[in-house]
Amino acid sequence: MSKLITVSQAAGELKAADKILILAHHYPDGDTLGSGFGLCRALRAIGKTARVECSDKIPDKYRFMFENMEQAADFEPEFICAVDVADTLLLGDKLSVYADRVELCIDHHCSNTRYARKLVLNPEYAATAMIVAEIIRELGVEFDRDIAACIYTGIATDTGCFKYSNTSSYAMRMAADMLDCGINSEMINRTMFDMKSKARIELERMALDSMRFFLGDRCAVMVITNEMIEKSGAGEDDLEGLAPIPRQIEGVYVGVTMREKQDGTFRVSVRTDNHADASAICSLLGGGGHVRAAGCTISGPQDRAVETILEAVRSVIC
Amino acid sequence: MSKLITVSQAAGELKAADKILILAHHYPDGDTLGSGFGLCRALRAIGKTARVECSDKIPDKYRFMFENMEQAADFEPEFICAVDVADTLLLGDKLSVYADRVELCIDHHCSNTRYARKLVLNPEYAATAMIVAEIIRELGVEFDRDIAACIYTGIATDTGCFKYSNTSSYAMRMAADMLDCGINSEMINRTMFDMKSKARIELERMALDSMRFFLGDRCAVMVITNEMIEKSGAGEDDLEGLAPIPRQIEGVYVGVTMREKQDGTFRVSVRTDNHADASAICSLLGGGGHVRAAGCTISGPQDRAVETILEAVRSVIC
Repeated sequence: MSKLITVSQAAGELKAADKILILAHHYPDGDTLGSGFGLCRALRAIGKTARVECSDKIPDKYRFMFENMEQAADFEPEFICAVDVADTLLLGDKLSVYADRVELCIDHHCSNTRYARKLVLNPEYAATAMIVAEIIRELGVEFDRDIAACIYTGIATDTGCFKYSNTSSYAMRMAADMLDCGINSEMINRTMFDMKSKARIELERMALDSMRFFLGDRCAVMVITNEMIEKSGAGEDDLEGLAPIPRQIEGVYVGVTMREKQDGTFRVSVRTDNHADASAICSLLGGGGHVRAAGCTISGPQDRAVETILEAVRSVIC
Repeated sequence: MSKLITVSQAAGELKAADKILILAHHYPDGDTLGSGFGLCRALRAIGKTARVECSDKIPDKYRFMFENMEQAADFEPEFICAVDVADTLLLGDKLSVYADRVELCIDHHCSNTRYARKLVLNPEYAATAMIVAEIIRELGVEFDRDIAACIYTGIATDTGCFKYSNTSSYAMRMAADMLDCGINSEMINRTMFDMKSKARIELERMALDSMRFFLGDRCAVMVITNEMIEKSGAGEDDLEGLAPIPRQIEGVYVGVTMREKQDGTFRVSVRTDNHADASAICSLLGGGGHVRAAGCTISGPQDRAVETILEAVRSVIC
């Protein structure tokens, strides 16, 4: 069970430490990477040795976060800090060796399993990057353009570019502060939200084809199979950002995106509007997340997996 | 030629006036309507008689701006104020009778033709609604939830939900202030940016099917035919926002969306990244617009229309 600490205590822990290894979650997104690289850059600015690791390959679109950063010499970590990692399972295969050794976790998921020795948790915040920004301020590091771009990306991606209900005025003002550091937010937003590969467009077309409606059209389910991924030539990068699509349809309370995995199970993303609690749905199936966006894993085959998730949806919205 | 006046002078003009008619531009969008209804509500709050008019029917998605507002008794206007209307031509048919009588224009388009007697112009601002918000402050009106929702919508729609390069930190902070008034920004953003009908999803799928690539994949062309519109059951509202899709594809400099019209001609939207000038392409074909977004009309049949636009694209990017 973690000891809950404040932002300023977390800054104190980091100031006292060195050879800091920062862990991002697998299937890395803008918030875990923005938090990780933002923090790493700030720690280096105060003379610390630090690096970020992730079990999965970091998608190209996040390269700007680290491409002008010096590669850290391979050091034996003395202090391990996880960012935006709610559960040690989310460390993924490669980083699972550190599961018992996380000294500090910085997170905004209320589902955090409190595996770290110390935990800064703020479930009110839209992004872990907002907590990291406060820690960076406490460290006395000035936000340069690179740090600001990392923090901005974390906030922008976790709020759907300031679109979702988790976008507080504080989140917007913090993003505004990052704009004032001279970041190219248009480039970041174009890369995060607009740019699609040809393979992605093809995959999207097939995914839209698969869309089915249930429970009086209040639930829409989209399935992405291995066959579609193969046929379209889509890479891991191309699979991101599909989850919101079903819920964008008028009248849909619960949007479900199911992605077939190599082992035949389905990774399920659930998005809801204010009529339903996504984390309640997913927790029925051993998953978790936020009220409007949550996830779980269900075993196949496809038809049974769809039935399983529908049953959970039905029990929550009916 | 308009006299340029300040925000505080504009507030003075409005304070001294009554029976104020506010004009929005035709093909109304979130900024002209948000500016109009935001200002109208504020004027009523200080006891003025005011109403908003538009030549075109206001799309349903903007209903929230006025549905709980009292209908103004039909009054003979004594003071006419245009918001976000750069040119009297944009008043549209019905409102063209007022073209010579506009006392005050509030606008952010640097292309404003200065037709009004007095003009508050700030081309630095992403939205006219930002200028209106400053005027409302000068009027001494407190922002209630309804006014704030109007102003927020103007800023959000004109910045593509804070995504475009015109998003200043000031724009974000002003939007944050509106959030603090308790608006339901998620509802607004979902309605403005995310909500799609089932017919729209079906149309999008067919449009993606039609996508073809040219000029070494630097140009993508998507065609929306009358048959697709009919088959999908898409209405006029469902056709909005398709134009950006082809240019969102990685490596595409020029994205072309061609929409077949009833008379067999094609309305062409061209979107470009920083490699090409959309207005240069369209002006070769008798159209025009901005550097990144422009349009023109080409006669059919489809294959010849595609050749025509490709020739223009080729001459500009090669």
